Amino acid sequence: MSIVVVGSVALDSVETPSGKVENALGGSATYFSVSASFFTNDIGLVAVVGKDFPKENIDFLKSRGIDLEGLEIAEGKTFHWSGRYGMSLSGAETLSTKLNVFEKFSPKVPEKYKATKYLFLANINPELQMDVLKQIKNAKLVVCDTMNLWISQRREQLLETIKHVDILIINDEEARQLTGEKKVDMSARKILDYGPKRVIIKKGEHGVMTLSDSTYFSAPAYPLKSVFDPTGAGDTFAGGFMGYLASTDEVSETNIRKAMIYGTVMASFNVEDFSLNRQRRLTKDEIESRFAEMRSITEF
Amino acid sequence: MSIVVVGSVALDSVETPSGKVENALGGSATYFSVSASFFTNDIGLVAVVGKDFPKENIDFLKSRGIDLEGLEIAEGKTFHWSGRYGMSLSGAETLSTKLNVFEKFSPKVPEKYKATKYLFLANINPELQMDVLKQIKNAKLVVCDTMNLWISQRREQLLETIKHVDILIINDEEARQLTGEKKVDMSARKILDYGPKRVIIKKGEHGVMTLSDSTYFSAPAYPLKSVFDPTGAGDTFAGGFMGYLASTDEVSETNIRKAMIYGTVMASFNVEDFSLNRQRRLTKDEIESRFAEMRSITEF
Repeated sequence: MSIVVVGSVALDSVETPSGKVENALGGSATYFSVSASFFTNDIGLVAVVGKDFPKENIDFLKSRGIDLEGLEIAEGKTFHWSGRYGMSLSGAETLSTKLNVFEKFSPKVPEKYKATKYLFLANINPELQMDVLKQIKNAKLVVCDTMNLWISQRREQLLETIKHVDILIINDEEARQLTGEKKVDMSARKILDYGPKRVIIKKGEHGVMTLSDSTYFSAPAYPLKSVFDPTGAGDTFAGGFMGYLASTDEVSETNIRKAMIYGTVMASFNVEDFSLNRQRRLTKDEIESRFAEMRSITEF
Repeated sequence: MSIVVVGSVALDSVETPSGKVENALGGSATYFSVSASFFTNDIGLVAVVGKDFPKENIDFLKSRGIDLEGLEIAEGKTFHWSGRYGMSLSGAETLSTKLNVFEKFSPKVPEKYKATKYLFLANINPELQMDVLKQIKNAKLVVCDTMNLWISQRREQLLETIKHVDILIINDEEARQLTGEKKVDMSARKILDYGPKRVIIKKGEHGVMTLSDSTYFSAPAYPLKSVFDPTGAGDTFAGGFMGYLASTDEVSETNIRKAMIYGTVMASFNVEDFSLNRQRRLTKDEIESRFAEMRSITEF
């Protein structure tokens, strides 16, 4: 395996000002792996779904070249999230979260995944993230995500986990919550003190920034005229980011910057339709074209 | 004259978490013209001060090569602003505003200023901005600033004024207030409908963006480790922006982008000390060095 992701595979019911969708394919590991699959085909997914998980979703993931040996199919129902976005499309209101089979999720990493070079710990309980780190010990690059719930309810465990990762990717609100710093730059600097070699902060309409001890990089969001459904944008960013890095297999500053632009581009497509619908008709040419546009809107 | 600015020259009393200063040189036209003076020496200033305005301030402006024929010295006291910034340094709490001689300010543009190519209408009552536009009719580039007060209390007059300007420079909160749009990009697009050929939106820690009918550009803020006093940052940005444009005398997309980076750099120096103290010891080499850094933190 080139990339392994551990996270959720879910069915989402989402309502936005543009419309609604019921039981659509979702989950952090899904958005991540489908996004990464546009760059590399050697992706292993560790997650759990219930017996109700539609076969067409399995077929879609397989069609993207994603290995599903790590996808456990358990007795019970698939994790279901229901949310609604208001006119500003900034932050969903969660209507219901039914963990179902995800409640007892204990990641079991298949043998053939254990030598992976690139590991993405999507947003799950930091104790489970640590479990995975004990199973995959020699990854070249470990990237970790988290969310407000774990920052408030599993703070100690989260701080322990991020000591062991190379890159923490979080959004600006989470960075503020984690560090108590109001400014994005200050929060990023403080996170470096917690252990990771690099932090990437997603700032929504304000783009992304990254900081290490000796480097700083900032890029705007892709200027979309309108957003349809923001669900999964963060994981899609991470998938494009790691997919590009894995495809080049070189974790240099130059490649990290390009990877962040590919992540930005992938996220910009994701929000143009519900679920992963935009990805189903996305082409490599469209990706390259937006990458070039990102250059043209930042060059001086 | 190459550049003419119409705005305020003031004495400010400012308190920040780093310290305080009393009756320090301030005002939009001051910050603008001193910043522009690092790029061109042919700057005319239209403003009013009182008899109490210290001669050392006059000497300082003259030492920067700024022409003061347009600076009226009226009976009474100079405009005085007093404000305090909290720990976040985002937005001042105004403690007092004494308009004094500024209350009856009626801009009188000296004859020799009337053929200026570059005109900056700093943040004053939009009716006065229109008065100036009637006196300076053939500028190559007219740039305008405003503030929340005029957006709420002189909305019609402001909309009339910005019909006649080439570029509106405002901050993100003002753009939201003016248009009712929550997202920066959307507010910028809406402002174009009001008449200006271009809008530049200052987003504080998130940098600046600009939009015209056919172009889009975004740049981050210069990554300062700490901010001392934000007063005057916006006018200092505008001064660097127009100073660079006037020095090249070419209003192309390429030059506008470079001008925005010079504006960003000038603003980053301004906030490192109270009043214009940092500008008093600023060198052209320091400016060029930060310009190069801006390239290095955005290149991919």
